[in-house]
Amino acid sequence: VIDLPFRPDRSSAAPVFRQLADMLRALIGAGRLAGGTKLPATRELATSLGLGRASVSQAYDELVREGWLTAHVGQGTFVAGRAPGPATPPRSGAAASRQFVWAGLFALRARLLSAPRGLAPRRDVPPIRFDFRGGRVDRASLPTDDLRRAFARAVARQLGDLAGPGDPRGWPPLRQEIARHLVSRGIACDPSDVLVVNGAQQAIDLAAHVLVDPGDTVVMEQPGYFGASMAFTASQANLVGVGVDAEGLRTDELARVLRARRVKLLYTTPAAQSPTGVVLSERRRRELLALADEHQVAILEDDYDSELRYQGPPVAALKTLDGAGQVIYAGTFSKVLFPGLRVGFVVAARPLREKMLLARWNADVSTAAISQAALATLLGNGALARHVRRVRKVYAERLRAMLDALERGMPSGTRWSEPSSGLTLWVTLPGGIDTEGAFRTAVEAGIAYTRGEVFHFDGRGQDSLDLSFASLPPARIADGIALLGEIVRKYVPRSARRAASRERAATPRAKGRSEPDAAILAER
Amino acid sequence: VIDLPFRPDRSSAAPVFRQLADMLRALIGAGRLAGGTKLPATRELATSLGLGRASVSQAYDELVREGWLTAHVGQGTFVAGRAPGPATPPRSGAAASRQFVWAGLFALRARLLSAPRGLAPRRDVPPIRFDFRGGRVDRASLPTDDLRRAFARAVARQLGDLAGPGDPRGWPPLRQEIARHLVSRGIACDPSDVLVVNGAQQAIDLAAHVLVDPGDTVVMEQPGYFGASMAFTASQANLVGVGVDAEGLRTDELARVLRARRVKLLYTTPAAQSPTGVVLSERRRRELLALADEHQVAILEDDYDSELRYQGPPVAALKTLDGAGQVIYAGTFSKVLFPGLRVGFVVAARPLREKMLLARWNADVSTAAISQAALATLLGNGALARHVRRVRKVYAERLRAMLDALERGMPSGTRWSEPSSGLTLWVTLPGGIDTEGAFRTAVEAGIAYTRGEVFHFDGRGQDSLDLSFASLPPARIADGIALLGEIVRKYVPRSARRAASRERAATPRAKGRSEPDAAILAER
Repeated sequence: VIDLPFRPDRSSAAPVFRQLADMLRALIGAGRLAGGTKLPATRELATSLGLGRASVSQAYDELVREGWLTAHVGQGTFVAGRAPGPATPPRSGAAASRQFVWAGLFALRARLLSAPRGLAPRRDVPPIRFDFRGGRVDRASLPTDDLRRAFARAVARQLGDLAGPGDPRGWPPLRQEIARHLVSRGIACDPSDVLVVNGAQQAIDLAAHVLVDPGDTVVMEQPGYFGASMAFTASQANLVGVGVDAEGLRTDELARVLRARRVKLLYTTPAAQSPTGVVLSERRRRELLALADEHQVAILEDDYDSELRYQGPPVAALKTLDGAGQVIYAGTFSKVLFPGLRVGFVVAARPLREKMLLARWNADVSTAAISQAALATLLGNGALARHVRRVRKVYAERLRAMLDALERGMPSGTRWSEPSSGLTLWVTLPGGIDTEGAFRTAVEAGIAYTRGEVFHFDGRGQDSLDLSFASLPPARIADGIALLGEIVRKYVPRSARRAASRERAATPRAKGRSEPDAAILAER
Repeated sequence: VIDLPFRPDRSSAAPVFRQLADMLRALIGAGRLAGGTKLPATRELATSLGLGRASVSQAYDELVREGWLTAHVGQGTFVAGRAPGPATPPRSGAAASRQFVWAGLFALRARLLSAPRGLAPRRDVPPIRFDFRGGRVDRASLPTDDLRRAFARAVARQLGDLAGPGDPRGWPPLRQEIARHLVSRGIACDPSDVLVVNGAQQAIDLAAHVLVDPGDTVVMEQPGYFGASMAFTASQANLVGVGVDAEGLRTDELARVLRARRVKLLYTTPAAQSPTGVVLSERRRRELLALADEHQVAILEDDYDSELRYQGPPVAALKTLDGAGQVIYAGTFSKVLFPGLRVGFVVAARPLREKMLLARWNADVSTAAISQAALATLLGNGALARHVRRVRKVYAERLRAMLDALERGMPSGTRWSEPSSGLTLWVTLPGGIDTEGAFRTAVEAGIAYTRGEVFHFDGRGQDSLDLSFASLPPARIADGIALLGEIVRKYVPRSARRAASRERAATPRAKGRSEPDAAILAER
């Protein structure tokens, strides 16, 4: 029996039979399947690889046509005596000149790793004039002088302390500053409760590592942060989505899911739902915690954007209500400073924290020491707090500009979330629109945004887009959204235009902003 | 049937029955096993959990004694009607005040994560006077001015470029500098072949993620780098060790292993075997590559210390002989600069690199941007090369001091490796010595070193120790090793002292340095 290292890559554009043919060709070319070897019958191979029999037949047929295999009626299929083309016999005692076949060696989780559709880097695109993609900050607002001084201090005065092997829990003075900082979020914690990590993504990945066995069910918001769905998918979680409306995660849907199946972990972004920016309401918070308590589900609270709140009182973290130690609290300084800083933190109950610490050591030992020391300085001397106050005003103005521009420029039937914190909002285009065409035209016009399907692990979201208002000044936001509105308008189907105009006659607000309590994303 | 989330933690010091009892107690206390619930029969539970029946019986007995369970002859074992102590009934609609039970939720790989014995942080130890632990560098030699200028430049002049979302492949100018730098190691590569990572540990962990499925066999040197064995163990690899002698990894043992079983990945440290510091000989390099070619095994070359070479010509990396793209080449700047920097790199064939890139995005997106820019400056302006030339002299002198001190101070029968590169060497104490007692006494005397078992995943290595000569000046090395020699001498058993003195009479070099070609570690 041949032990074929093949598993189909379902995320690949190539059909399965072609993937199998490529693999067999590579194995024969590399001498790993010798001439004369009998291949398994199509039915047998299909069963052992979990493929349809037709895929195996197609792959064999292609290779027979190309001369790599020979088929003998009544006897079966064999590797051809001599591989076609310039196949090199295995050499010994010297480096191989043939190429090593990596694809056959990938682990199952490597096959599960794929970039969300629409996030892959694009080539040969016109220059970006209006950048509405997430993960950006306003560079002009960065506290360059404070940063320069903080980094210089780390190198010139703290290098002796920083040059040793990094503490995987984090640099002690930074853990102290973070614990102090979290008091402002209502979280009473001790420096020993804090783990410093490389941003929220590492916190999510470590939680997935420590908690998720293949097949475990993890619940997250849909639309929801793609970095989380990638990490849970790579851990072979069974991902279940729960909808989002103007009050945030829908606890009624969550209750249904929890009654139907055993759930291990709930990932949520209550302070500014990613990507809609909606704040989880007080009532929903209590419902969510009660459900998690009743069903003994762990909660991972990603509080990534909580500092950037533009109206209303500060929203307490879920963690503040967590007497049982059931909430893993993760945060980052990427949004208030800049993403490349790569410093975040986790606060978690001790048994979990100890496992996460080991997983963290294993992953990359510790966070960059100089960055940790610089951040501790900025937290300690108040420079970060001053910076947050400053950028709150900057972003509040940009959010207003974005909302006004959407109101003015987008066609009837367009809906959008109205965040009071965070850096992005979520736009759903009128039904029936050719969003693919609109996206292509927007790219041509120099407009960049993230497509809605990136924030869905279940293939939905084609009708939506994620817009960040962080990196452009108000006037540029107005221009960019006006242009985007013109483009989108061209792709609204005629029937929808007629329907929308009827609707507009009936309800004057149908196009515009939704009521704060309306379920703006309920149909998603 | 009760679905018990228990898997024994074999790395724990607690016996399995106690772990099971703890788990049951926690579940009952948390209300997850209600009063009156009938527990499975011991035989049934033992089978379903893969435990011995005695462990289950012992756990049940303990909980019956404590009142958590009741046993009724002929009927079975039940959860007691009312849990002892101040158990809180489940509340709904409010945060729980009882503690959440994390231990039952850990994934299998979290249970496989454990710090190597002897690496756990120690408490209440006397201050360290002589630090011979690995992972340290000479702080006084650090190029503080160059570092300060490079970090200041990154913040003051490059922040605009650095503040965006980090490129998961690395900051382009750094990838360019690394590709240029690798020419000095004989590796012709393009910037697009380079991935920047957070040090060699992340390179190892990413390779484990992308290549190792549970049960896959991974081969590594023994003694060998504990960070690698941790990462492969957490990936549920079947780890197989291959011995090391004065020529490095024993290719004869490797050949036996490869003939006996299918191996997916070989992890090796050819430039300065970790921890012995031995260089893999030219002959062994060719044998290793031929074997890997013959058996189509992927190689992960950890070239962590290659810059720090003290005698002889530079040793080419294995990667230079790798025409097939079979070698994953990983390196780091932690040893030539300082460990807290957390910047390393991987060069790998494209199919593998693309998978590693996705795994890297998933893990923590990208490496700290300011550190990357500062390092690019240090590589580009020659400051790093000057620093390497300077520390080479410093460390060569410390290595000489260490070897002289060992020669003078250690008892007969002690053997040690003679590295020509790296920062550590490997000492094997005379047979029959109480190494545990010697270690305790050394700690009391303020001497810190890493015990040999840390570098073994198979429980061996108790007779050995890893000594770094990096962080102390020559005179302090001489004093520390003299003191260590005195301590060790006290723990040599009388019989061994007599044997050693006979041996010394016969061969005057028995105590001292080994011949360069002798298999100094062959018995390991």
